[in-house]
Formats: sequence, structure tokens, C-alpha cells
Amino acid sequence: MEAEQRINMSHGDGGESAHRLLNGVILPALTGTESREPLGDAALLPFPSAGKLAVTTDSFVIKPLFFPGGDIGKLAVAGTVNDLAVSGAVPLYLTVSFILEEGLPVEHLRTICRSMAKEAAVSGIRVAAGDTKVVGKGDCDGLFINTTGIGVVEPGAELRPQLIEEGDAVVVTGTLGDHGIAVLTAREELGLMSEIPSDCATLFPMLKKAREVSADIRILRDPTRGGLATALAEICEDYRLTVELEEELLPVKPEVEGACELMGFDPLYLANEGKAVLILPARDVPAVLDALRYFPEGRNACLVGMVTGREKGQLLIRTPFGSTRRLYRLAGSMLPRIC
Amino acid sequence: MEAEQRINMSHGDGGESAHRLLNGVILPALTGTESREPLGDAALLPFPSAGKLAVTTDSFVIKPLFFPGGDIGKLAVAGTVNDLAVSGAVPLYLTVSFILEEGLPVEHLRTICRSMAKEAAVSGIRVAAGDTKVVGKGDCDGLFINTTGIGVVEPGAELRPQLIEEGDAVVVTGTLGDHGIAVLTAREELGLMSEIPSDCATLFPMLKKAREVSADIRILRDPTRGGLATALAEICEDYRLTVELEEELLPVKPEVEGACELMGFDPLYLANEGKAVLILPARDVPAVLDALRYFPEGRNACLVGMVTGREKGQLLIRTPFGSTRRLYRLAGSMLPRIC
Repeated sequence: MEAEQRINMSHGDGGESAHRLLNGVILPALTGTESREPLGDAALLPFPSAGKLAVTTDSFVIKPLFFPGGDIGKLAVAGTVNDLAVSGAVPLYLTVSFILEEGLPVEHLRTICRSMAKEAAVSGIRVAAGDTKVVGKGDCDGLFINTTGIGVVEPGAELRPQLIEEGDAVVVTGTLGDHGIAVLTAREELGLMSEIPSDCATLFPMLKKAREVSADIRILRDPTRGGLATALAEICEDYRLTVELEEELLPVKPEVEGACELMGFDPLYLANEGKAVLILPARDVPAVLDALRYFPEGRNACLVGMVTGREKGQLLIRTPFGSTRRLYRLAGSMLPRIC
Repeated sequence: MEAEQRINMSHGDGGESAHRLLNGVILPALTGTESREPLGDAALLPFPSAGKLAVTTDSFVIKPLFFPGGDIGKLAVAGTVNDLAVSGAVPLYLTVSFILEEGLPVEHLRTICRSMAKEAAVSGIRVAAGDTKVVGKGDCDGLFINTTGIGVVEPGAELRPQLIEEGDAVVVTGTLGDHGIAVLTAREELGLMSEIPSDCATLFPMLKKAREVSADIRILRDPTRGGLATALAEICEDYRLTVELEEELLPVKPEVEGACELMGFDPLYLANEGKAVLILPARDVPAVLDALRYFPEGRNACLVGMVTGREKGQLLIRTPFGSTRRLYRLAGSMLPRIC
């Protein structure tokens, strides 16, 4: 690839250049190997003889490609692994598909692939299949990635949201809104602000530990687009629950709070990329908080509310002054292209 | 969705509009259902207790979105199912991820989803998980789709390319280059030509039948980007085979041949989207051709060459005048954005 510093249309045609890009750049950076078995049209892989298949897919179109605390590659792998982890699955295989814009520096692609490999190692997920397409200058914005994650939910490891009951606790694993504000500062739309790093992180090891200390965690969700409020509003609606959040308990970094005040954002609706929300019996909260806080990405884990009823399907928030209001899913666009 | 005729940025934010687009447009057209089980972060699915997992992924960026014989949705489903089928797998699950450009008519998305549902029914593959992202006007070209296919290779159903031997036959299931020329005519780059339909089709039922009549089909491949020559050159290289094609035997429609002569293309390198190449023992050729020709998409199936040696890894073609030349993978770009 010495002579080819930028992506050109022939990298996408399935011929010799595409072959060189795959074997010279993508595979070495993504899997650490120069040559592999002949690549067939589909990868053939072992799957445990018991357990359910867990499948999730996401396309990533974040702008900019590189931001404080991560890049699109780290985000794609962490985001997909997190979707598996919050479904109770052990991550097994990842597919990676790139759409590249003509003119993209090959070095950016290499850096992003390396970042994906590093993040995949955190959970042990293995890149199993891939694809590369190239579109002309102006036909996409730099680089898009699709990742599909495949995992196994071992027998007995299914989460049981239908067992949620009044008095269960709602826990979040850390501060809210970091990713949304990080992307904004990276776009220099908040020119005066200091850099705020994204929380982008793989949550599988931490959530695995939490489930080891409490077999009764009822549901896990990662509050990405739409933020904590949208994730919880959906849970309330899907399972006919009333959840009451305590506004005072919601963890928000002072600099994120400052940026939100300045821009008129609500951290409850801002995207997170390294946070989970858990509903579990109140008796297990101390042990689970201990387990979460053992991990750097869980050091700010805390209780934020309770399940106060069934049937109604409402997410409520109580202010420090004692008044209560209802929260809905995010309505209208807040920040485009944050993931 | 009455009031929303076009995609806007809020359709991609994970909130209320995204929810309406998913439940009001995408799911009804894609799965025929209005409401479903609560959608978690990953789908949990049964998987056979024996057999290997087959996984393939592809992003589709074809331009234009609609072309004679198909559209990007049909192409994505057929292409992904074909990758599973040529790997010896039974298709089980499909993930579908859209990247939509702000301003895209919602009706186009609906038509494409319906077309995906129709094509999925041909093989019985089930849409298991999905994702929708929206990018600003000019940040992508209309609509891109990623599909990831998951299948099972039943015990004993693995293809065995390592058993290929001298004297084995090379069969193609139909005429070459139709898809490449169809896309060109759809772009009106060949204004004077009559419309040539793409061969875009799901090959699973036909290939299943062929494997039922011959248990010794050694390898299957779908010659998409890069065409038949690139697919066979890769097989020759991967398994150290010499394959000799007979130029006279290669099936090409007269109108495709005409377009190729006019434009300087070689049908051996043009993309197909509904063709497979098979290598099998010569004794099984008559029965396999009968099985293939029973299907409309296989009516032009024919023998095109032989395996003439091992070790060298060369694809050769013999002209009607008796001379032989070597064919290589496609070098350089031929037609951008054909899939």
C-alpha cells in the first residue's frame, strides 16, 4: 500500500486493489494477522450446543471520526458488545463492514481498525466476517461502519424483566451525558469549553461481575441515543411499570452540567456510550454497587430511583422541591450523528 | 407518518420520531406486523443444537436505488442469502441496518422494505434485528443498507473444496454480466440501449436442489463484484488449482455482449447477482444441470470448463482458435457502486 495513501474507487471493486487493501491494511490492523485461511463468502464458526443466539446490529455515522476518549472504531465495537452484554449474552463474534469515501486517508482506516482490535480484546469478541465498499467523493462523509454482534445467552442466564416488582431499585453505572457533550466539544461547537472525554467503553466485564454478585438483576439497558430518560421510558412502556427517579441522585459531571446549561440540553436525554441502567431487588443494591465501582467505568455507579408501581407505564422524576413530573421519550432531534 | 413525507434528522435520534418511523413504516413493510414484542438491544433466537454457525455481512451502496430487475433492498437480501447458500448453509436470520439521507422520500424506504420482505420469503430467512441512522443532506447518497446473514451448516453439509481433483467440472448457473450492464443502462450511461434486467435473485432453493442430486459438489461461489474471472482466480489461488475455461462455452446474452463491445467491458469481469459457479465431479454434471435448469434462474446453466491440474494456482481460458491465456483477478476499477 506504499504508493496508495488515499482510498480510491478501485479499492471497492472486489478485485486486486480491494484484495491489497484487505490483506495489507484492514486484516493486519483488525486481526493482527497478515494471511489467513481462504476467505469464503461466509465464515463458518462453532456455536455452543446449548443456549440462545443473541444478535444485534448497528451502523455508526458519528462525526467527527475521532473525538476525545475514542473514535468511530472503538465506539462501534463497544456499542455492539454492550448491546449483547445488556441482553445477558456472552459476546462471541463480530462482523465489520466499512463504507469508505474516495479520498479518505488510508492511515485513518488503519488507526480505526487498530482501535477496533484493541476494543474487541476487552470482551474477547472475535472478528468473524467483513466487507468493504467505496463510494465517490461527496457520496458519504468519510467513513461509516456497520458492526453486527453475535453472542450466546447461556441456559439460565436470560434476564427476566417480567419479574420486576414494586420496590425494585434503579441503578446507573456512572455519570450521564458525557458522550453527547464530548462529541459537541470535538466539533468545536463549544469553542470556549475544555475538552470533555466520551465515556465510550465496553461494559461486558463489569456487567458480568455484577450478574455474578446478584442473580436477580431483572433488566439491563445501555442508554445511548435518547439518553437515560428515553431508555427508561421505553422500559416503563414495554413492561407497564412506574419508575420514579430522584433528580438529586442523578450523577452528572459539573462540566457536563455546565455545558448543558449553556446549550439548553438535558443530561437525561444526552447519549451515553459506556453506561448501563439496571433494575434489581433493593436488597442486592449494596453488593452490586460494590461490584460496579470496582471497575473504572463504574466508579460513579449509584442508585437513582425505584419502581413505584405496575400497570401505568410512566417514568416520573421527583425534584428536590418534592414536585413530580412525567418524562417521555426524546421528542425531536437533539444532536445529530453522535453515534 | 401522514405529515412526514421525507426523512428528517429526528428520524435518527432514537426518540419519538425514530420510534414512529420504525413502527409505522419499517416494521410493517419489513415484517408485516404493526406491533411486536418489546424490542431489546439484541434479538434472542433459537439455534440448532448441532451444526456450525455461518455468518456473512455486506453493505450495499448501489446507484441508482431502483434498477431493471430489482432494487437495493432485493439486492441486499438476495446477496446476503446467496453468500450463506454458497457456504453450504441454510439461511436463518437477517439483520438490516439503514443509513438514510435527510430528504429521502419515506415512500422509497417503504418500497425497499417491502421488496426485502418479499425476497426474504424466497429462502425463509427471518429479519431478526435492525438499526436506522440518519445523516444530513449530502452526507450520504440516498440510502445505504447493511445486511448480515446468519445460517447453520448442518452436520455433514460442509462443502469440501480440498477434495477438488483433476477432471472435475466447472459449471455456471446462467449468463454472465447481466447485473453490471443492467446498472449501467439504469444510469442511462448507455442511452441508446434497450433495458437489460439484472439477474438479481435468491439462489438458495436452486442450490439446495443441486446439492440434493449431487452430494459431491466441492465448492460453490457467487461471482458478484469482479465477476466470474475474479471468483475463479481466487479459488485457483486459494486451493492451488489450474482451471481451464472454454471461451466458446461461456453463456452471455447477445444484448450484454453488444453492450460490452460498445463499452469495452469483458463479461467475465462484470458483476452477477443471481449466479453461482460450481465445481463438481464430471459424472454428476448431467444430473446437476437438470436440477439447475428446473429453476427459471438456472435455465441457462452450463458446463464452462474443467480442473486440469493441481499445484499451479492458475485460471486459464482457451479461445475458439485453440490458444490459451491466463486470467487474473480484476485489476483496477470497472464499474463503481454496482452493489
